[in-house]
Amino acid sequence: MSHAYRLVVSCPDRVGIVSRVSTFIAEQGGWITEANQHSDLGAGRFFMRYEINPESIGLSAEELSKHFAPIGEEFGMQWRVHDTATKMRVVLMVSKDSHCLVDLLHRWQSGDLDCDIPCVISNHDDMRSLVEWHGIPFHHVPVDKHDKTPAFAEVERLVEAAQADCIVLARYMQIIPPTLCERYAGRLINIHHSFLPSFVGAKPYHQAFGRGVKLIGATCHYVTEELDAGPIIEQDIHRVTHCHTAEDLVRLGRDVEQKALARGLRWHLEDRVLIHGNKTIVFA
Amino acid sequence: MSHAYRLVVSCPDRVGIVSRVSTFIAEQGGWITEANQHSDLGAGRFFMRYEINPESIGLSAEELSKHFAPIGEEFGMQWRVHDTATKMRVVLMVSKDSHCLVDLLHRWQSGDLDCDIPCVISNHDDMRSLVEWHGIPFHHVPVDKHDKTPAFAEVERLVEAAQADCIVLARYMQIIPPTLCERYAGRLINIHHSFLPSFVGAKPYHQAFGRGVKLIGATCHYVTEELDAGPIIEQDIHRVTHCHTAEDLVRLGRDVEQKALARGLRWHLEDRVLIHGNKTIVFA
Amino acid sequence: MSHAYRLVVSCPDRVGIVSRVSTFIAEQGGWITEANQHSDLGAGRFFMRYEINPESIGLSAEELSKHFAPIGEEFGMQWRVHDTATKMRVVLMVSKDSHCLVDLLHRWQSGDLDCDIPCVISNHDDMRSLVEWHGIPFHHVPVDKHDKTPAFAEVERLVEAAQADCIVLARYMQIIPPTLCERYAGRLINIHHSFLPSFVGAKPYHQAFGRGVKLIGATCHYVTEELDAGPIIEQDIHRVTHCHTAEDLVRLGRDVEQKALARGLRWHLEDRVLIHGNKTIVFA
Amino acid sequence: MSHAYRLVVSCPDRVGIVSRVSTFIAEQGGWITEANQHSDLGAGRFFMRYEINPESIGLSAEELSKHFAPIGEEFGMQWRVHDTATKMRVVLMVSKDSHCLVDLLHRWQSGDLDCDIPCVISNHDDMRSLVEWHGIPFHHVPVDKHDKTPAFAEVERLVEAAQADCIVLARYMQIIPPTLCERYAGRLINIHHSFLPSFVGAKPYHQAFGRGVKLIGATCHYVTEELDAGPIIEQDIHRVTHCHTAEDLVRLGRDVEQKALARGLRWHLEDRVLIHGNKTIVFA
Repeated sequence: MSHAYRLVVSCPDRVGIVSRVSTFIAEQGGWITEANQHSDLGAGRFFMRYEINPESIGLSAEELSKHFAPIGEEFGMQWRVHDTATKMRVVLMVSKDSHCLVDLLHRWQSGDLDCDIPCVISNHDDMRSLVEWHGIPFHHVPVDKHDKTPAFAEVERLVEAAQADCIVLARYMQIIPPTLCERYAGRLINIHHSFLPSFVGAKPYHQAFGRGVKLIGATCHYVTEELDAGPIIEQDIHRVTHCHTAEDLVRLGRDVEQKALARGLRWHLEDRVLIHGNKTIVFA
Repeated sequence: MSHAYRLVVSCPDRVGIVSRVSTFIAEQGGWITEANQHSDLGAGRFFMRYEINPESIGLSAEELSKHFAPIGEEFGMQWRVHDTATKMRVVLMVSKDSHCLVDLLHRWQSGDLDCDIPCVISNHDDMRSLVEWHGIPFHHVPVDKHDKTPAFAEVERLVEAAQADCIVLARYMQIIPPTLCERYAGRLINIHHSFLPSFVGAKPYHQAFGRGVKLIGATCHYVTEELDAGPIIEQDIHRVTHCHTAEDLVRLGRDVEQKALARGLRWHLEDRVLIHGNKTIVFA
Repeated sequence: MSHAYRLVVSCPDRVGIVSRVSTFIAEQGGWITEANQHSDLGAGRFFMRYEINPESIGLSAEELSKHFAPIGEEFGMQWRVHDTATKMRVVLMVSKDSHCLVDLLHRWQSGDLDCDIPCVISNHDDMRSLVEWHGIPFHHVPVDKHDKTPAFAEVERLVEAAQADCIVLARYMQIIPPTLCERYAGRLINIHHSFLPSFVGAKPYHQAFGRGVKLIGATCHYVTEELDAGPIIEQDIHRVTHCHTAEDLVRLGRDVEQKALARGLRWHLEDRVLIHGNKTIVFA
Repeated sequence: MSHAYRLVVSCPDRVGIVSRVSTFIAEQGGWITEANQHSDLGAGRFFMRYEINPESIGLSAEELSKHFAPIGEEFGMQWRVHDTATKMRVVLMVSKDSHCLVDLLHRWQSGDLDCDIPCVISNHDDMRSLVEWHGIPFHHVPVDKHDKTPAFAEVERLVEAAQADCIVLARYMQIIPPTLCERYAGRLINIHHSFLPSFVGAKPYHQAFGRGVKLIGATCHYVTEELDAGPIIEQDIHRVTHCHTAEDLVRLGRDVEQKALARGLRWHLEDRVLIHGNKTIVFA
């Protein structure tokens, strides 16, 4: 199967949704290769994700969408059809720490991460050589700490020009302005280097060291206006002991950050993450 | 919701299964509160599990089964409807190690494990007081190592008399005879104290110690005639170091065994485990 | 080896400590079976723990202490010698949740937890039968929420009468008064059902559910006056998903609490935990 | 501290070793910044590792070794002093899978892995550009499957010319000839893509898939003549489900391999791994 259609749905829960949707797919001859569903009984909301073999169905993604639209309307659905033949365009943003960037670029290069990376943006020039070796344009946009507005205007311009579907803050150590957060709501992914909600803000490993925790963590989440408070996609941890200095925590944490970010991004790219309020449904 | 219906299906994969089943449920007014599906693309087989609110559907489990039967026939399904109002009857078997038994009895007593325990059978008398304190009958069936046949005839008689739906070997250190394995195929659960397929057979922790592994494990699996080779339900591990003796591994392993067995049994009781060949689908 | 001497030392770091201590032990013919050391380079403090075979050394623990005292003085040490022949006396306190209690009692009964349990104290009467089945006295001390003073006076009296070396709050859902915290500083162990410092205070699993975390945790720590802020001994986590309700988190968390508390207590009983400020050194 | 001396000792256990060694260090004014010891009571063998601040001691590593030699002789020690100012020289060997190589090169480049990498050797030419971008010589040594002798003669020549202290098989998919195993015994590190001793040999993820395991793993170990049977340094695992194909296991396993290899190599470079028979003591 060279590509797939993905139908992702979220709507008020009621009897007959699966019947209606699955019968529609069956009527087109559609072969569902993967199906996930979730009923949030507390919130009364239903979520589903179908992966469909396009060869089994005599329709383009646009046609499928057009045919599906009345059902979406009938059930009050938020829904989308995504043809994986169209790769998502992911802009990476980074500061001076290279570990998440190296990891994502390698996954992209080896075909493990199914997306296009139109460019990398950084407030420092350090990663230029690495990025360009991968054949990806690199934009150095310095941030003046007394007036960040021009820098973020330029970032926004570059992201627009790149036609980004998604922005990944791969250890980009600047706070994103609210306008950008809002514009890319649900498409702006950050890796925070703590086990949220512990240790919000700056130097979380040093905060963790000060508190004497026995596990450190990292959190991949969507960015919202409130700092480090957006919907969590993935978290992971690593065990530490009294032997480890704050610098050791920084070092050990890098591996956790890499993995949590890579998993979170992968799930996002595969349309496995649905946002509901400040939480996520992850059909992993 | 005081109880639930669970519809569990396994059949050759083809277009329209979900449509047919979900439409049938919708036609009865059935509210699906949890749904899991899996297509094994390699094996061409489809698996599903629906949890349905009985109050939404004006049918008893027997009536629901009767109505569903033609669909089962049409699609060549293995299927069952289980009304959770009817608790599964689980016979526990144990030798001298108490940790899994204590854990399961406590989960049962606190309502965490939704089953009846008609009796506990052991080849030793050590656990009698513990079991009887829980108000559960205890049967001591000594096993003569020169002739195990009478003991297992008695075990089989007791299990039959208890109308067991499921047998759990909670560290019962005897090999189960093939007839019993066959009779309770897919309903006879063991906890093996290694990370299978490593360290099959006796004294796995001592084998692990001898090999110098850095992680020990436990495996919850269905018992088949071939020793420690049946379908795996759940596995877990614990980190060890050069500081740990073989006895330490035994001790640390107990916690892993408890958890892996409790999780595996819970999933079995919740109809979340489907067997296919020598593997399991676990809708956890 | 039927028992062991444990020498535990904490002092300002400088050249020659190990030489002085190990030479002293060697001069007595002492065979060190386990040795742990840690230099906190930031704090300039040194920590060590020796486990010594008593048969190799012709001295009682008291005599060993007496001979060691001048070294302790010379180096400004906090130190103690513990003969494991004298078991620590551990009072357990519990409310209505039984999982940690059952786990600790079973470990104690099976000889896995090397201590005496002179009594169990609870603000409810629910656990009486369980505790008494283990042959341990049970004290029901109801807490009047309008005036908790009499209850805690009684608790303190019982703990004193039991000659407790250590108090374990095995899900005792009351805040301990400052006087008791101070009196048993470094000997009063709690299990908090969150991954601290996240979710301090009441209903942490519901807080975690509200925040949409992907991992839940538990923290074993020494109690200090400030709620859930004392030195952390051990933490552990369990993965959760969008499928889990707040009640599921409560259930899944129980296993994590059991394990974190049991490990923390074991290390405490084995003199493996040294407190320094608000942190612990754990020679596990 | 710009560098450190590391004294690593293994000898028959007896009373007075620590006293003798630590007193020797103290007499030189040596400040021990990290100390690890282990007594294998079963084997009657003692292991230790001291990290010493060179500025506290008025001796070169050579002088320190010379002064220490009589103690080594007296106690029948295997011992070495390593001055970390002299970096170990690590030759990497790789086939076509890049994930471990990329990870190690990045750790080396960012200063996280304290060694020199004089060259990378591969039986394929695919990694040349990546390696050379890091400024490291790349040697393509094709292996003729009908006669591997010339290739391994060339490998041995290159390793010798590189004055390698250590060889790392970072997914080098060829069996190393016995002579090379022997020559670099205890200095030849492999990452095997299974949780050993399960799934020795070829295609371990496919073996794991076939067996239906619920956890996959990777094992970092020293290479000996017997395939995948040498002393284990580190192991790690990742949870998998029925949803994962064999190809998914391969993909998920890459992260585990990276981490297990990186940790194992780091510990080796930091003189934290002592070999005893077919096991390791890891002072991590």
